[in-house]
Amino acid sequence: MIVVMQQGATPDQVRAVVERLQNSGFQVHISRGVERTIIGIIGDRTRLEDTALEAMPGVEKVMPVLQPYKLASRAFHPEDSVIMVGDLAIGGETVHVMAGPCAVESREQLLEAARQVKAAGATILRGGAYKPRTSPYSFQGLEEKGLQLLAEAREVTGLKVVTEVMDARTLPLVAEYADILQIGARNMQNFFLLREVGRLDKPVLLKRGLSCTIEEWLMAAEYIMSMGNQRVILCERGIRTFETYTRNTLDLSAVPVVKHFSHLPVVVDPSHGTGKWQFVPTMARAAVAAGADGLLIEVHPNPAEALCDGPQSLTPENFARMMKELRRVARAVNRRLAGEDTDV
Amino acid sequence: MIVVMQQGATPDQVRAVVERLQNSGFQVHISRGVERTIIGIIGDRTRLEDTALEAMPGVEKVMPVLQPYKLASRAFHPEDSVIMVGDLAIGGETVHVMAGPCAVESREQLLEAARQVKAAGATILRGGAYKPRTSPYSFQGLEEKGLQLLAEAREVTGLKVVTEVMDARTLPLVAEYADILQIGARNMQNFFLLREVGRLDKPVLLKRGLSCTIEEWLMAAEYIMSMGNQRVILCERGIRTFETYTRNTLDLSAVPVVKHFSHLPVVVDPSHGTGKWQFVPTMARAAVAAGADGLLIEVHPNPAEALCDGPQSLTPENFARMMKELRRVARAVNRRLAGEDTDV
Amino acid sequence: MIVVMQQGATPDQVRAVVERLQNSGFQVHISRGVERTIIGIIGDRTRLEDTALEAMPGVEKVMPVLQPYKLASRAFHPEDSVIMVGDLAIGGETVHVMAGPCAVESREQLLEAARQVKAAGATILRGGAYKPRTSPYSFQGLEEKGLQLLAEAREVTGLKVVTEVMDARTLPLVAEYADILQIGARNMQNFFLLREVGRLDKPVLLKRGLSCTIEEWLMAAEYIMSMGNQRVILCERGIRTFETYTRNTLDLSAVPVVKHFSHLPVVVDPSHGTGKWQFVPTMARAAVAAGADGLLIEVHPNPAEALCDGPQSLTPENFARMMKELRRVARAVNRRLAGEDTDV
Amino acid sequence: MIVVMQQGATPDQVRAVVERLQNSGFQVHISRGVERTIIGIIGDRTRLEDTALEAMPGVEKVMPVLQPYKLASRAFHPEDSVIMVGDLAIGGETVHVMAGPCAVESREQLLEAARQVKAAGATILRGGAYKPRTSPYSFQGLEEKGLQLLAEAREVTGLKVVTEVMDARTLPLVAEYADILQIGARNMQNFFLLREVGRLDKPVLLKRGLSCTIEEWLMAAEYIMSMGNQRVILCERGIRTFETYTRNTLDLSAVPVVKHFSHLPVVVDPSHGTGKWQFVPTMARAAVAAGADGLLIEVHPNPAEALCDGPQSLTPENFARMMKELRRVARAVNRRLAGEDTDV
Repeated sequence: MIVVMQQGATPDQVRAVVERLQNSGFQVHISRGVERTIIGIIGDRTRLEDTALEAMPGVEKVMPVLQPYKLASRAFHPEDSVIMVGDLAIGGETVHVMAGPCAVESREQLLEAARQVKAAGATILRGGAYKPRTSPYSFQGLEEKGLQLLAEAREVTGLKVVTEVMDARTLPLVAEYADILQIGARNMQNFFLLREVGRLDKPVLLKRGLSCTIEEWLMAAEYIMSMGNQRVILCERGIRTFETYTRNTLDLSAVPVVKHFSHLPVVVDPSHGTGKWQFVPTMARAAVAAGADGLLIEVHPNPAEALCDGPQSLTPENFARMMKELRRVARAVNRRLAGEDTDV
Repeated sequence: MIVVMQQGATPDQVRAVVERLQNSGFQVHISRGVERTIIGIIGDRTRLEDTALEAMPGVEKVMPVLQPYKLASRAFHPEDSVIMVGDLAIGGETVHVMAGPCAVESREQLLEAARQVKAAGATILRGGAYKPRTSPYSFQGLEEKGLQLLAEAREVTGLKVVTEVMDARTLPLVAEYADILQIGARNMQNFFLLREVGRLDKPVLLKRGLSCTIEEWLMAAEYIMSMGNQRVILCERGIRTFETYTRNTLDLSAVPVVKHFSHLPVVVDPSHGTGKWQFVPTMARAAVAAGADGLLIEVHPNPAEALCDGPQSLTPENFARMMKELRRVARAVNRRLAGEDTDV
Repeated sequence: MIVVMQQGATPDQVRAVVERLQNSGFQVHISRGVERTIIGIIGDRTRLEDTALEAMPGVEKVMPVLQPYKLASRAFHPEDSVIMVGDLAIGGETVHVMAGPCAVESREQLLEAARQVKAAGATILRGGAYKPRTSPYSFQGLEEKGLQLLAEAREVTGLKVVTEVMDARTLPLVAEYADILQIGARNMQNFFLLREVGRLDKPVLLKRGLSCTIEEWLMAAEYIMSMGNQRVILCERGIRTFETYTRNTLDLSAVPVVKHFSHLPVVVDPSHGTGKWQFVPTMARAAVAAGADGLLIEVHPNPAEALCDGPQSLTPENFARMMKELRRVARAVNRRLAGEDTDV
Repeated sequence: MIVVMQQGATPDQVRAVVERLQNSGFQVHISRGVERTIIGIIGDRTRLEDTALEAMPGVEKVMPVLQPYKLASRAFHPEDSVIMVGDLAIGGETVHVMAGPCAVESREQLLEAARQVKAAGATILRGGAYKPRTSPYSFQGLEEKGLQLLAEAREVTGLKVVTEVMDARTLPLVAEYADILQIGARNMQNFFLLREVGRLDKPVLLKRGLSCTIEEWLMAAEYIMSMGNQRVILCERGIRTFETYTRNTLDLSAVPVVKHFSHLPVVVDPSHGTGKWQFVPTMARAAVAAGADGLLIEVHPNPAEALCDGPQSLTPENFARMMKELRRVARAVNRRLAGEDTDV
């Protein structure tokens, strides 16, 4: 941290800041410039969070120099983390595709979707049993019935299951059924929920909040990890900008940036990222080229009948075609798609 | 709603859309233009949410024409709503100031702050017992102990209490102590929590999410109201933009816009909106001039010792000075500050 | 400036950075922390702009500590600047209202508008002769004919004239007619144009770019001032955000922030800021309460016939009513509206 | 266009809107719904731009239904446009890489960079002779001398030259030297300049403005095309968002979106898009996978000595390595990099 004193700060004001820091166990370096005095702080940044230095007399601003996350940082854990989901390794050479409907709507819909995405090479089934909807009048999910259907689809197809948990009270139930617990974008800073999933021994798919910086996203991962659960998979799903031709702006540069600052795997959701099925295969290819460790794709047997997110859902045919294309891109960047050996 | 068909959509595709709409009980109007066919839909928009029209063959896009909220809309309830908090009326002629520390830190700190803001004219005490913090290593609040201290401060000063509820599980406890339940910006789309507070008979202060549109904010209010609780007070607290000289960008135009589309009262939080105490009194004046029904202001007996948000907290002296200025502005726009009669 | 070295940077890399800086005439302070080495740079920041320190081996990032503008900064010029436009003082106790149509459309329209805004208390006439329009098929302004009409309206009413200059080639012509040269939001970083107006001895109204930070805005002012012209008036006119209920998001906190960092006067344009006439009077009041030195308001004798920006133009009646309200708010914050003494 | 009348609009108000439209030569369709009357307008949207319908009594809002651009739209020109730059075809099967330094600094620097990027497979040399810089104190370019050096580098290497034109007055000079005229992001809505380049018969590289929507970008292309010059190449270079770990947010979804709505070729600039050389090769790969027709890449013989944008410039070695990777990705999406046959 750097404390920048105001122009004209008095020696007493500088001294007060230095004393407070030293009393808190930090070392300081003072630089007296032509215009300003600057105080460098040496010590553990996480311990500094609560000292209200910026409100002290004579202080202009306090600037962090280092990233505030630790467990999630690459400095702390230089090797890429590989998260095991059963026998699937997320974050290694293989790119995993998580696919399925936005919402679990019925047994027929889910099983059909599961068989089709499995056939095309997906290894993990996605599907919401609890749905966060902007309108209270929209379909809110089948809840426990939806979870049971997901378990049945897993039984039938062998796919792993990723599904969203929206609230700490339903967490035990969701955790019973899910192989990966999904934290949705709107809950990325639901700190109670983050701590609760941090107490479990289960992989967590942490979606980036709609207007959250990469730093805040890694701090949300840090919440989970600080409780003991290190199995966090990050998911870029588009951020909110002024652009209106897409539902969100998919920030693919988040993939290399996260890999620079963190060791955690990162997957990409081009369905929410674009909001239009027409753009999903292209952005899925781009995501793999950008180094994504996996994809989250909405597929519905009949998008025009979907109760949720029809416009961004691929048909099974379009999904299968996309998977073929992805295999070629994966190989071009020295990765492989799960199921590739048998399928091409 | 308007359905815009693609250029070159076939008559069969148009017919399929029309049939689906008619089967769902809607009336339709078809306009065949030079370039496109457009289908107008007449009926209850809330029932349309779940039909995936945009994924039907030949459809280019579906455009909503009306606002999606009902109970929160001025069309539904043309008069301004006045929310009673005990004997205080929020949304009427009187502007109420809710003031106090970011977090409850100790008995001394809270009681001192409460007495000081009361003396200066505040009618409601703010203070967090549960704190949503970006870092898991920051002070997270005194929890139930903090609630008890708030109750004691109410006892001593006669101020009402507004405090944040972060999770459905702690809601019963918080509801026991609070006069107004605050839903924080990060929880604005925590739909479980919205429904839970919607079941209570207690005023709710609903903060706008950091990147939420006014429409989404009113839809969040609709969640609460659709469960039965009509006592929603909206709070503008700044949105996230690219600007870095302020912590957030306080969107004061939200005040007249909300009042145009909704009947609910709206208050403004310039402390979070700017993030710097230096700018708080000015923006508080501007908020009152913009028609705000109240203000939420962070005040700390000693900001430089605050465990949370010191840089945006006013000292009691600055708060008292600001209140004097606010009285003049309130009168200039035909409002009055609570406590004005006795105090000037 | 602070140079943060990478974790694991070698002593040679640190030495290379230090040598480069010392060879360029800077003093340095080195802080060796537990995790990182940090190099503080003492000297004239403007001279450092062009050294590509961040690309040197071992450097993680370079962080500016001070603001990059000089002539525009309050540190350089502690007193408020008052810009004289003829006998009108912008930036003093008096709040000036610049009003008139978006575009000059005809002699009748302009003279009528001019008389009406003058009667209500405006001191400066606005009106575009050259119009930047998003579509090449929209009305682009009357050009020189429009300038002549503005001069005629000045003659008739005694109002000063502010009008936009869009290009360096038309600058001599526009400068011949205008009392204040307006640089539009889309030209805020047209550095050629900024330098050209910087060579003149004429007040400049510099609108903030749609997505420009306050720092970039003050740097644009610095461009003008560095060429010799110190008579810059800043104009906040709304920034681009995700919100869609307003045309832009009017950032009123820019007023106190600019006044904190700079000595230049700042006016507010609520017409472009909100894009809807319904919200203009309210936001004009808020702007005055926020400390604005003036307002820019679109007024049209018949908005429903306007060739440009009809939806955000006030009728003369609504403008007159607004001016009455503004007088009360101005007094409440110890300012006065021009023309107030005679008019109330 | 759709006109939405206010709830409670009178029959007279509806009639007035209908009459104005019919008098202007439009056909209308009226839908009377339960809550609102909606008027559909059939006719040429570009002619409607200037009627201030939204300011008429009883009108709530006017909603465009179709895109406002014509010449730039795919509806108008269904086939992909291929823009010839000498014998190079931009927009066809081949992906072209435009590479070179941010600014032309010296004969040695430029010729070395040109030879190196040519050797690695670039076909077009980039380099700024006029530089738009945020600070007036930064290096502003070698101007005409820079143009002459670019011509010399073209002579020596056979590369085509793309360079920025910042102002209409220097356009004739720049056009004399450049093979492609670049319009920078800050000038995307400099409508004077757009019209001027629209009068020439020379390819134009039109960068997307920092906060411009794709619709505004295509409207800027429309400005150029409406003057007669159809040879527009679009360039996505990152948009401004709240994220701070990258200089801008590269919006790669703009590539498929532009290709959906327009026939114009689109290239990507990951150097400005990310602002950090470490992320450039990855995002270049992703851009090619997303269907970009070319890339714009900053390469400097010695980034740590660059006068401009050193942190985002690749060394020639890193550039050559990136080109090898790009070839594999291009093939995986059925494209080829220029120079591929001889080079691999």
